[in-house]
Amino acid sequence: MKMIDPRTGIEVLDEDECLRLLAADEVGRLAVVDGTAPVIFPVNYVLDERTIVFRTAEGTKLDRGQRAGACFEIDAFDRSTRSGWSVVAAGRLDEITPFDSQALADAKALPIDPWANGEKPHWMRLTPTRITGRRVGPPR
Amino acid sequence: MKMIDPRTGIEVLDEDECLRLLAADEVGRLAVVDGTAPVIFPVNYVLDERTIVFRTAEGTKLDRGQRAGACFEIDAFDRSTRSGWSVVAAGRLDEITPFDSQALADAKALPIDPWANGEKPHWMRLTPTRITGRRVGPPR
Repeated sequence: MKMIDPRTGIEVLDEDECLRLLAADEVGRLAVVDGTAPVIFPVNYVLDERTIVFRTAEGTKLDRGQRAGACFEIDAFDRSTRSGWSVVAAGRLDEITPFDSQALADAKALPIDPWANGEKPHWMRLTPTRITGRRVGPPR
Repeated sequence: MKMIDPRTGIEVLDEDECLRLLAADEVGRLAVVDGTAPVIFPVNYVLDERTIVFRTAEGTKLDRGQRAGACFEIDAFDRSTRSGWSVVAAGRLDEITPFDSQALADAKALPIDPWANGEKPHWMRLTPTRITGRRVGPPR
């Protein structure tokens, strides 16, 4: 059954559909807080069970993403029909460190395939406490 | 002249190209900080000079976006060629209030056209202090 907000016409996606969309994609956007302001980065990722795993080099995602709140988003928009959907996964971001060697080995076995070149020696995992999705479409 | 990071192969877009891409699109993603964690929302927007203007209803974007740091992102990805670009505009977000009646009248004249239905009686403006862009592409 579709849940549609009568005020906005926005359809609320249930978590199963959100997870299906997350499993089917490979690139999204991560937001972390740097100081008091948010920063957004595109990242290549893999959905691992109910978590988002990606690789990174040194930098803000690593420095600000340690045991910190983060938000990850994927979407698809069709400008010609003024429609689209987005899925947001919000929770805690942690580096998968060598101290947890089994978790790191498992993460390294995931098919994460960054489009950019360069070493990305750190594996990060976002464990969502909240996964939400919305779809906005043309009138039907 | 293209600026390409030799380590990652990522091309750095100059601000003129970032502004051209921002002017050509109509939907992006806004991140604000809610408490200590970031939150991402898709928004329909218009580029007005060098600022991002959008409309919103009551809620987190309004409550957390008042005189606060925010980040806005647009992108386009081609999964088949593992390529894409993103533009990020980071700065301060303010509501354009009726106290500045000329600014509000100017904002209301902008062609902001939300895809979702429902009242969006608040106009918000992100004034970037930093506009950056990157493009990642297949080997050429």
